[in-house]
Amino acid sequence: MYIENINGPADVKKLNIAQMTVLASEMRDTLLTRLSRHGGHFGPNFGMVEATIALHYVFESPKDKFVFDVSHQSYPHKMLTGRKDAFLYEEHYDDVSGYSSPHESEHDHFTIGHTSTSVSLACGLAKGRDLKGEDGNVVAIIGDGSLSGGEALEALDYAAELDGNLIILVNDNDMSIAENHGGLYQNLRLLRETGGKAECNLFRAMGLDYRFVADGNDIASLIEAFKAVKDSTQPVVVHIVTQKGKGYAPAEQHKEAWHYCAPFHPETGEPLMDMSGECYESITLDFMMKKMQADPSVCMITSGTPTVLGFTEEMRKKAGRQFIDVGIAEENAVALASGIAANGGKPVYGVYSTFIQRAYDQISQDLCINSNAATIIVAWGSVYGMNDVTHLGLYDIPMLANIPNLVYLAPTTKEEYLAMLDWSIEQKEHPVAIRMPGGALVSDGKAVTKDFGRLNTYEVKEKGAKVAVIGLGSFYPLGEQAAALIKEKTGVQPTLINPYYITGVDTDLLESLKADHDVVITLEDGVLDGGFGEKIARFYGDSDVKVLNFGLKKEFLDRYDVDEVLKDNHLTAEQIAEDVKKVL
Amino acid sequence: MYIENINGPADVKKLNIAQMTVLASEMRDTLLTRLSRHGGHFGPNFGMVEATIALHYVFESPKDKFVFDVSHQSYPHKMLTGRKDAFLYEEHYDDVSGYSSPHESEHDHFTIGHTSTSVSLACGLAKGRDLKGEDGNVVAIIGDGSLSGGEALEALDYAAELDGNLIILVNDNDMSIAENHGGLYQNLRLLRETGGKAECNLFRAMGLDYRFVADGNDIASLIEAFKAVKDSTQPVVVHIVTQKGKGYAPAEQHKEAWHYCAPFHPETGEPLMDMSGECYESITLDFMMKKMQADPSVCMITSGTPTVLGFTEEMRKKAGRQFIDVGIAEENAVALASGIAANGGKPVYGVYSTFIQRAYDQISQDLCINSNAATIIVAWGSVYGMNDVTHLGLYDIPMLANIPNLVYLAPTTKEEYLAMLDWSIEQKEHPVAIRMPGGALVSDGKAVTKDFGRLNTYEVKEKGAKVAVIGLGSFYPLGEQAAALIKEKTGVQPTLINPYYITGVDTDLLESLKADHDVVITLEDGVLDGGFGEKIARFYGDSDVKVLNFGLKKEFLDRYDVDEVLKDNHLTAEQIAEDVKKVL
Repeated sequence: MYIENINGPADVKKLNIAQMTVLASEMRDTLLTRLSRHGGHFGPNFGMVEATIALHYVFESPKDKFVFDVSHQSYPHKMLTGRKDAFLYEEHYDDVSGYSSPHESEHDHFTIGHTSTSVSLACGLAKGRDLKGEDGNVVAIIGDGSLSGGEALEALDYAAELDGNLIILVNDNDMSIAENHGGLYQNLRLLRETGGKAECNLFRAMGLDYRFVADGNDIASLIEAFKAVKDSTQPVVVHIVTQKGKGYAPAEQHKEAWHYCAPFHPETGEPLMDMSGECYESITLDFMMKKMQADPSVCMITSGTPTVLGFTEEMRKKAGRQFIDVGIAEENAVALASGIAANGGKPVYGVYSTFIQRAYDQISQDLCINSNAATIIVAWGSVYGMNDVTHLGLYDIPMLANIPNLVYLAPTTKEEYLAMLDWSIEQKEHPVAIRMPGGALVSDGKAVTKDFGRLNTYEVKEKGAKVAVIGLGSFYPLGEQAAALIKEKTGVQPTLINPYYITGVDTDLLESLKADHDVVITLEDGVLDGGFGEKIARFYGDSDVKVLNFGLKKEFLDRYDVDEVLKDNHLTAEQIAEDVKKVL
Repeated sequence: MYIENINGPADVKKLNIAQMTVLASEMRDTLLTRLSRHGGHFGPNFGMVEATIALHYVFESPKDKFVFDVSHQSYPHKMLTGRKDAFLYEEHYDDVSGYSSPHESEHDHFTIGHTSTSVSLACGLAKGRDLKGEDGNVVAIIGDGSLSGGEALEALDYAAELDGNLIILVNDNDMSIAENHGGLYQNLRLLRETGGKAECNLFRAMGLDYRFVADGNDIASLIEAFKAVKDSTQPVVVHIVTQKGKGYAPAEQHKEAWHYCAPFHPETGEPLMDMSGECYESITLDFMMKKMQADPSVCMITSGTPTVLGFTEEMRKKAGRQFIDVGIAEENAVALASGIAANGGKPVYGVYSTFIQRAYDQISQDLCINSNAATIIVAWGSVYGMNDVTHLGLYDIPMLANIPNLVYLAPTTKEEYLAMLDWSIEQKEHPVAIRMPGGALVSDGKAVTKDFGRLNTYEVKEKGAKVAVIGLGSFYPLGEQAAALIKEKTGVQPTLINPYYITGVDTDLLESLKADHDVVITLEDGVLDGGFGEKIARFYGDSDVKVLNFGLKKEFLDRYDVDEVLKDNHLTAEQIAEDVKKVL
């Protein structure tokens, strides 16, 4: 096989077009086997095989620099830049991450996992090159789905200001993760339909040169186009049309389902694991569908990840105009929600913890200064969530919990979660975020009668003495376990508290603990710095009560083992009980 | 005068065009007098007088809803919606804020102060209307300068998805605060030059209908255009060309200088106060100009506010290609800086505290995960900074200080500030942010020999006992005063510490304090929640050392009196000394 002999771009350059076509086929076979066993991003990589080969054939990486947007389509690039073993041999599958990484190769220039960043980063590489008086090409490779993000649009606008080489390869497969949303996609369609000849052209309107390639899975056409723009002395867009999932029938037919895959049977495409069963996503979907049916002013918003809360294509259709996908555009999603709430609607925006980071200013300015009653469901904010360094769910508490006016809630069970969601949708006073618990769904079947409108009122679940355990959200069960162990080890029955509110301190309750408690411990599923526990430490700073904060160290973890991380951070019940014993 | 009889939009509707033209002239006279005495946004308001009159003539506010982008051009709107007294009579000048505010009037729908938010918020109002099955027009009024912001571009893209009324009034005066930057401004120019007829049209490329008005200061043309789009059943852009600062010669000629004005002589335009003298902006300019001359790889980045670090038009020209204005596009600015650093350049991005909020994800993902050595200067992060609710500089510590890998520094003097800046530019290891001190410049003339590469090493400036005072950045002088008072009141000489690092804790030093200190106090110029002091409180949580954190309460202040706010937050030296005395 050719692929076995590709140790770097120089080996690609030795091949002719027929050989490169065979190579493409080998690469797809290799990807299929790996993805069927290991899971990963399917559609984006299957579509980009030919373009990646052509890039390495025409350009001189690493002197010429490629920046892959999201970089979930960089598997073919890794295969051609000395990392083929991680795709060919199962024992090496975990040698590489699913994203570009300078730690792996000189052909990768950034660790990237969020969308819409490539053009901006590439502009930076180009500007750095020009400041130093060097030469070389810089190529940003961005999918059509990523174009709707503010950072990408800002950078497309800025790119025209560069007076040196920059190539923006727009990989248009007419799909985001789900279908695209937004007016610019009408223009991409027009460009596809006119062979790139339409006068009205988004990229030209942004001041950029433009070139069109009708078949972006044809190596010869791609090579011709790349040669034509190589060493261009000004920014230029190359718009190529590719097929997402190309070469694997199920992925060609069901593009959304095959954007990302878990391990599956390569013959049938059926997943190896049973993915059904009740989870926080499915109960959210059920709850919201009923809510929307009962009240036409309720609506659900997503920014390009509709399945984050279970909304499949079928369910989106059923929800009709009450389901809003703004495309990858988190800033717009938050401001839109604020506007809907300001005009009497009841918006619920569902978003992953790692992506809510993209809307800090909108949450602060558009939403919280205006105190509009929109709801944000923050999903996968947990050590049990995604574990790539670019997709961690460990920072949403410090980011959100210190914004004035926001009520950030941490449910510990299914029942609390749904009660909070219902309260939040119906109230008119506060912007509310709800941290969907990480890990397995916990259900105790108990009716929740708490009035969440009485802000910052914690609940004593079990009254004890000497030690109080405040277990936040998904770490409440850990608090229960730790309390039991503390009792076992010391004979002391700790008070067990469910705080519910991340954004505020129950000063009355905390004050009352001083009477018969010496130690208060806090547990939170995120980094400690700027988080929940530190607020409790500050409260007791001038008192004799000792406070121990349990949570994660401020650092960027990458592809971690949960149990190891918990242990490293003293987050097993055993460790917590031991630490408490030491200060008692 | 007509203006004296305008108590709401109904009174505008009674006038004919000749009378409205007189009204416009009266409004400019009124604005000139008020601005010459009170200061405020000049150019944006002088340009928008006619368009505002025409809006209120044609539409039915508040049923029809106007959303002003930034809302710094909303003075004429305020004058026509029952708030004329705040412009006509000096004793009422402070009855209104400089931005739109629902607390002032039913004609204002949001408190707005940041750019690029109007289209998104207006989409929300429109969607809320449609969900409830109501009718009415929603009009977003956005300046050309604001179009470059990601949130605005995301919303322009999304707007085409709405299937109801939305009018986007693009007020094109061919200026941002300074000149525009970005490729889309080439398209606006083309549209102006072709009377809106060019086929290549950014707005049409975003899927929107489009209408052009050549003279946006002509009431008759505006009324005609607004009547034509009123009750439109789909989103439409009305592109009007106005003159920034129209009607006042100095402002027409020097648009950048007259974007915002301090009180001035109305005859000459000369400011009433002497604005010269050394300040943090001017020393940054001097330092950076020398640095850039000596090293061509150093560059300065701004996102549409070049004078934040003293870069006037003259200085920008002098810096040449080493000065980069990306336009209003904070996300692009940060990612660009990361890219420049990744390719060997030495970028310094200067930005106001309130606007760095717009780039949280870029700081975390594009910059800090990649550990690129870019420098961010955070200006006006202080209680002594801007005091409108939309422009507070009180939240940057919680936002930045909890992002892994970032080194956030707090200088206390001019000398420390410049030493940190120099260190940051020359080092290759860390993304660094420097919090330019608020309040008056402090200079002690002392050479700074500290190696800032030894992260999280605090400095004991005066060794005492029992009490330690950790004074962060611009509150260090307050720490000195408090320490002196504590000595006076209690006889105890406190240890005085300059921590330098906001992002980390000097565990060795803090540990050593336990030996002979009972109380540690922290002082920070920002909100306490998620801030610096809480990290210290957490550190000492399991010990007998008491910790008192001094800083501001988490809340949205608005147009506050600094002394009152300091007093309310126990931030006078006297209050601090009293609080310490109580726990000693």
